Amino acid sequence: MTNYDAFFSRAAEKMKESAIRKMGTLVAQRRDIVSFAPGYPAPDTFAWAEFQEISRDLLSGRDGAVLQYGPTRGYRPLVECIAAIMQKRGADTTPERLLVTTGSQQGLDLVARVLLDPDDVILVELPTYTGAITAFRNVQATMVGVRQEADGISLEHLEDTWQRLRREGRRIRALYVVPNFQNPTGLLIGLEKRRALLEWADRRDILIVEDDPYRDLYFEDSASEADVRPMRSDDENGRVIYLSSFSKTLAPGYRVAWIDAPAPIAAKFEVAKQAADLCAGTLDQRVVYEACRQGLLDRQLPILRAYYQQKRDTMVAALREAFGTTLQWPEPRGGFFLWATLPNGIDADAMIPRAIEHGVIYVAGEAFFVDGSGAGCVRLSFSAPSVDRIREGVKRLAAAVQGEIAASVSRSRTTA
Amino acid sequence: MTNYDAFFSRAAEKMKESAIRKMGTLVAQRRDIVSFAPGYPAPDTFAWAEFQEISRDLLSGRDGAVLQYGPTRGYRPLVECIAAIMQKRGADTTPERLLVTTGSQQGLDLVARVLLDPDDVILVELPTYTGAITAFRNVQATMVGVRQEADGISLEHLEDTWQRLRREGRRIRALYVVPNFQNPTGLLIGLEKRRALLEWADRRDILIVEDDPYRDLYFEDSASEADVRPMRSDDENGRVIYLSSFSKTLAPGYRVAWIDAPAPIAAKFEVAKQAADLCAGTLDQRVVYEACRQGLLDRQLPILRAYYQQKRDTMVAALREAFGTTLQWPEPRGGFFLWATLPNGIDADAMIPRAIEHGVIYVAGEAFFVDGSGAGCVRLSFSAPSVDRIREGVKRLAAAVQGEIAASVSRSRTTA
Repeated sequence: MTNYDAFFSRAAEKMKESAIRKMGTLVAQRRDIVSFAPGYPAPDTFAWAEFQEISRDLLSGRDGAVLQYGPTRGYRPLVECIAAIMQKRGADTTPERLLVTTGSQQGLDLVARVLLDPDDVILVELPTYTGAITAFRNVQATMVGVRQEADGISLEHLEDTWQRLRREGRRIRALYVVPNFQNPTGLLIGLEKRRALLEWADRRDILIVEDDPYRDLYFEDSASEADVRPMRSDDENGRVIYLSSFSKTLAPGYRVAWIDAPAPIAAKFEVAKQAADLCAGTLDQRVVYEACRQGLLDRQLPILRAYYQQKRDTMVAALREAFGTTLQWPEPRGGFFLWATLPNGIDADAMIPRAIEHGVIYVAGEAFFVDGSGAGCVRLSFSAPSVDRIREGVKRLAAAVQGEIAASVSRSRTTA
Repeated sequence: MTNYDAFFSRAAEKMKESAIRKMGTLVAQRRDIVSFAPGYPAPDTFAWAEFQEISRDLLSGRDGAVLQYGPTRGYRPLVECIAAIMQKRGADTTPERLLVTTGSQQGLDLVARVLLDPDDVILVELPTYTGAITAFRNVQATMVGVRQEADGISLEHLEDTWQRLRREGRRIRALYVVPNFQNPTGLLIGLEKRRALLEWADRRDILIVEDDPYRDLYFEDSASEADVRPMRSDDENGRVIYLSSFSKTLAPGYRVAWIDAPAPIAAKFEVAKQAADLCAGTLDQRVVYEACRQGLLDRQLPILRAYYQQKRDTMVAALREAFGTTLQWPEPRGGFFLWATLPNGIDADAMIPRAIEHGVIYVAGEAFFVDGSGAGCVRLSFSAPSVDRIREGVKRLAAAVQGEIAASVSRSRTTA
């Protein structure tokens, strides 16, 4: 038997590998490459000594439950900790609304499975996070893109899109947004716009999926706690499903994140998670709980803000020096990403072999667009490489772009 | 907005909580209850000191990748370790066939999502593992049950069922079996029957999903390595998808298990897993790898076999003493479970309140049957409680059964 195609479900037939994960595999094969591709936090920010100490203590054997199966909702003291974190973000919540997930990717998967039927529409930003795209595609939902402006998603295009889809008789379930330092653009949704989105969702009877992994990583020179206030905190009508994570602030190797949702939806997420993996890693949850309880997380946050801001500064300065004004980007006010538009209509995906040749890699913009656009853009992550590697990588990128322009000029001469 | 029903997907409408997980929640609320309900390994078997040492070393900070995102397929050295384990079980494999999963429950979920469309049929044993039932139900597949005999699934009933379903025009995708110390019956599929099943699957062009978490836990007084040989090891035509786990042998709190499948199917599992949770816990995988590399796992296995055998002995002796011959069960030759038929047509589910009153809990048989039968059976897990608690729990169970019989006699007198 060699042909398994007949055995795949319709969902499986349509499954495609994430462009970013593929890039990760590519890069893993060449150690000397400067990688601006995956949005990895920097391991030198991880609290190694504290994690060592916490693990030693948890693994003493005094409490057998530390390595046992745990409740699907999550380790109860951690759930309560998360409720307190939500409170600090301005949102009243209860354990009935909360679920600990195996990373935020699982949160997106649960959203997809519990809320989307095949051919249902979910509205997403143009561009949007690739992990959300794969989760929504895996349940055969239709993603429809809405343009972004300097202060985030365009309300006008959102309403136009909704109108058009309704005329076409489509069922529109939800709007997915990453309001803070969006992956991939780094944009922030303005506060006015957040309120307008809540009203709009209520008027149009749809849910908002608010994915918020980066909010703690605002850069204090240009953003503040007030700028990253979740829509969830002003959601009076139960429209918002809110996702956040410890992956960017403690470490992604602990697969611990959470969803906050109206209780009836959270109950469905719990049942879906039971069948998906029973529970998130028990020891992982205990470690994260201790990191919260002992104040480690709170101590980390200002350090991380300064740390990633410095990397953003380094990348911005290096790009200015290497490209002058030929490369355009919105200045990131937080998070991990700089979103740049290449000069001279260069196709970012087509340039990848040349970039690798020069020893640098990024994610080509197309991967983030559900409408097939974005060919001229690149997502550059400044989070993981050191400042020296950032400078070196930008030089290599500039050389690759120069090479691509030269090749295109020479091609057009040959044609002419 | 109070009614979210209109927002749920068709899949979500049908999702139901697992009976065993619900039981776990119940029991967690009363500490004095002897729980024969969840199939938990015993925490006093976990290698606490070694895990402490391994974690200390991994968390030194020398290798940043220990707490970073990792490849979806799994940490490569662990994948190679798993290939060596498969080899020891008689199965040649390659990394292209392997995927590390976030527990075996995720393996079942991936099987469901990649292979089953709504209304597709998957054949399962009567009774079968509840986690598989929930995973298959969540993709809206139809489960059809096949009876078991002393040496496992009935080949005759399997063929009859297949014939009937084909006449009804149903699409039959796979057969799901737990061949070694089945959850919940503790039964072993005989070696002859394993070969016959492979031939049958080939003849009928269906896949076999072989779920094998308990195989290392054979009791040396009545079973041997030869008895637990996977079907996968004699699968010449690529019919078998094989799942196994470190949860029962190292610890379930590390969510680390694996699937071995024909490479094209494994590739789809990988893509499905990307969208489900990106990767299994990175530190968890590293710890499990070290436990394999340092020989800890190999040292544990004979200890675990003797340990759980002693618990089986304790439960069997206590049941004989308390019930004489009024309670019937097939003697477990390995694993965690004893599957008993209650006397006098007692309904196990209806008896639960009385059992809790007496301070003991089990899983009522019905939860394991996809055809609604099994009311007179209970699954008793002897794995987690101490030998003293097993003896105490069996006494309580006997008292509950006596009470139930007395109540039924008094009811029938009143009626008469």
